[in-house]
Amino acid sequence: MDLAEVARRLELQDLYTGYAACLDSDALERWPEFFIDDCVYRITSAENYEAGLPLGLIYATSKNMLRDRVSALRQANIYEPQRYRHLVGGVQIEKEERDALDTTANFLVVRTMQDGAMTLFAAGRYIDRVVRTEAGWKFARKIVVLDSRRIDTLLAIPL
Amino acid sequence: MDLAEVARRLELQDLYTGYAACLDSDALERWPEFFIDDCVYRITSAENYEAGLPLGLIYATSKNMLRDRVSALRQANIYEPQRYRHLVGGVQIEKEERDALDTTANFLVVRTMQDGAMTLFAAGRYIDRVVRTEAGWKFARKIVVLDSRRIDTLLAIPL
Amino acid sequence: MDLAEVARRLELQDLYTGYAACLDSDALERWPEFFIDDCVYRITSAENYEAGLPLGLIYATSKNMLRDRVSALRQANIYEPQRYRHLVGGVQIEKEERDALDTTANFLVVRTMQDGAMTLFAAGRYIDRVVRTEAGWKFARKIVVLDSRRIDTLLAIPL
Repeated sequence: MDLAEVARRLELQDLYTGYAACLDSDALERWPEFFIDDCVYRITSAENYEAGLPLGLIYATSKNMLRDRVSALRQANIYEPQRYRHLVGGVQIEKEERDALDTTANFLVVRTMQDGAMTLFAAGRYIDRVVRTEAGWKFARKIVVLDSRRIDTLLAIPL
Repeated sequence: MDLAEVARRLELQDLYTGYAACLDSDALERWPEFFIDDCVYRITSAENYEAGLPLGLIYATSKNMLRDRVSALRQANIYEPQRYRHLVGGVQIEKEERDALDTTANFLVVRTMQDGAMTLFAAGRYIDRVVRTEAGWKFARKIVVLDSRRIDTLLAIPL
Repeated sequence: MDLAEVARRLELQDLYTGYAACLDSDALERWPEFFIDDCVYRITSAENYEAGLPLGLIYATSKNMLRDRVSALRQANIYEPQRYRHLVGGVQIEKEERDALDTTANFLVVRTMQDGAMTLFAAGRYIDRVVRTEAGWKFARKIVVLDSRRIDTLLAIPL
């Protein structure tokens, strides 16, 4: 492992860390900036993913669609009393090409309600493709594969 | 810290990440491959561990015993509806010898049932010994020390 | 990213990992040693933090105050049956000066009671300042910002 590879791995860690911090701090307007323009973003269940079913709970095919989603969320939720906390671990490079990588990671999201009650909100796996751009690493594709197929509250925020 | 030490630390991260990914993806047939032939694998409670009690919930002294265990699990559980998600953090090198290291790490496992209910399944500490082999780092010893002493469902899967 | 920067990042990881391991192993007497003499340590809620309110649940302005706190905890709790497990992720350097860094990280603490029941005890964000000393990196300031404002059991241990 040479220094360039070490640096790349730490940069990928930074990408995932920054992504989680953006969501946790409710800075949703910055969220689309983690993606390239013609990205794919999808939230689906492990059950559907393994069955090869397309689409999912959320399916977006451009950064503009992500921006629209944030606008819709902001209009729907004047005030968001709950807080989310992401723990992301186990970032792995599954496959690499020149300046493009297939990566995976585990995530766990804990939600804290206004009254203080904490619940496990979501757990699962990111199945991603990242590319190196002039502005650093960005997601070209992010598939959020949820362990749970319960979806009732999952439309609230990006994951 | 020189580049060799940096690389070693990232390799250890990879070992733990790969181990967790193997279990989470239910690829149990690959699980024994994370160990050397004459390994020790043990699951015990913190209470028993601190009292110096030997054995535990699971106690295996070779890779073959791990393989047998996977076979038994596969025969017992035709269909496993639940999913597990490991978060592993805080990998530490506690002691080092030439190509053998005592390492520890924290883990948390979240279980998602088929109906979508998520629970904290297990939390605790790995107390391990890893050795460098021609096929990369492997576990020579892995002691899974559970914070909880409740054991009813813990026999389901390796941790 | 050069080797010095890589090494610094891994050293910071070690600081957070060691800190969590100290608390999880109930080695509270070592806990103040993660701080410099004239440190600030504070536990507060996200709500209060964002409102700019000073103080919080715990507010200490020296390492000696942290030592006093440990003594008080030891006298109050002859026997602590519960166990805590920290998962710390997403360590970020927010700002850097010569040998002093503003860092943040996410944390999740799971508590296991003596009967085996596991609960989400705390989640939130560390907002810290670390400095390089002759004995390695230490916390000059640590603000523990809890997602929850429920405080009833939080006085039990440092976070």
